[in-house]
Amino acid sequence: MPRLPEPLARLIAAFSTLPGVGPKTALRYAYHVLSRHPAEAGQFAKALLELHANIKRCDACGLDSERNPCEFCSNSHRDQTTLCIVATSRDVHVIESSGVFKGRYHVLGNTLDALEGITPEQLNIPSLLRRIEREPITEIILAFNPDIPGEATSMYLARTLKPMGIRVSALARGLQTGSDIEYVDPLTLGDAIQGRREMK
Amino acid sequence: MPRLPEPLARLIAAFSTLPGVGPKTALRYAYHVLSRHPAEAGQFAKALLELHANIKRCDACGLDSERNPCEFCSNSHRDQTTLCIVATSRDVHVIESSGVFKGRYHVLGNTLDALEGITPEQLNIPSLLRRIEREPITEIILAFNPDIPGEATSMYLARTLKPMGIRVSALARGLQTGSDIEYVDPLTLGDAIQGRREMK
Repeated sequence: MPRLPEPLARLIAAFSTLPGVGPKTALRYAYHVLSRHPAEAGQFAKALLELHANIKRCDACGLDSERNPCEFCSNSHRDQTTLCIVATSRDVHVIESSGVFKGRYHVLGNTLDALEGITPEQLNIPSLLRRIEREPITEIILAFNPDIPGEATSMYLARTLKPMGIRVSALARGLQTGSDIEYVDPLTLGDAIQGRREMK
Repeated sequence: MPRLPEPLARLIAAFSTLPGVGPKTALRYAYHVLSRHPAEAGQFAKALLELHANIKRCDACGLDSERNPCEFCSNSHRDQTTLCIVATSRDVHVIESSGVFKGRYHVLGNTLDALEGITPEQLNIPSLLRRIEREPITEIILAFNPDIPGEATSMYLARTLKPMGIRVSALARGLQTGSDIEYVDPLTLGDAIQGRREMK
């Protein structure tokens, strides 16, 4: 590509840092911003500048939130005996949207990944062990992605937590709503058969 | 979705204004920014704020550029007799990357689109007619997308410009490099047959 105007090139470089955004998409985004009113770019910049300043990390559970302690840790109506362990703050909001879980959360920050060099020491596990000592937690739900790092993290935590006398479970594996058995992968189908529910 | 922290929700709203970005992608982008150093968000915001301030629209050709007149209009080495008419500034940079065109450009700002209510009056056409009067232009190349608005704009301009004694051509239609005849659509194949080149 020939040289683009410098201010555009800089904005394209900024957009290119986003996950899954290549040079062509970044170019499209930048020209879109240019085509809109400058006040819109101003609002956008303001939202970026205020993000880190106004989001705090909850000291208790590691959630990115407007408050510390977060809205879950400070809410006495949430069940204190059940803890859901997730990789990231994003996962908390996804699980909340199901409306099924009524307990509290603990955010590890990531999943174990030998290839990426992510070890237990880099995760928010010491604070988890402190919570188990202090809080009346009796059940822990492991809610990680069904992939290799997710499995590794689940196995590591199950081995650490079960000897402490806590019930540890993981999210069920099986058919997703709206899926078609004909097109489901064999691993999922195997999970669905092994985890079959008795009809009542 | 349950309520997200307000600063995140505002950034997600900003990302959602970009073309092709839905709420899930915007959420992913926003959490990515949160996961990085605040200085990166600062750089991003700076690029947004400086965009409109440092990009000018060329009075002669309508190109968004760092200079007015732009680098093409002010470059005496560019052929002054050939003008390439495009819809947007983005198209200029794409055509420049081919390295084939040596003339100057004229940016309409958009293409005619009856459905979107875009009429000739809303395009950068008066300045085009002024240029034709003043500059030694003998050939015009119409470089619009091969779609209905692009075709409509090409036909409108050809009817306007040809009576003024100017040679008007449009980009060739045919097979794209790397395409496979087996999978090419019938319209393209028809174009490729009608526009066949004699072998030398």
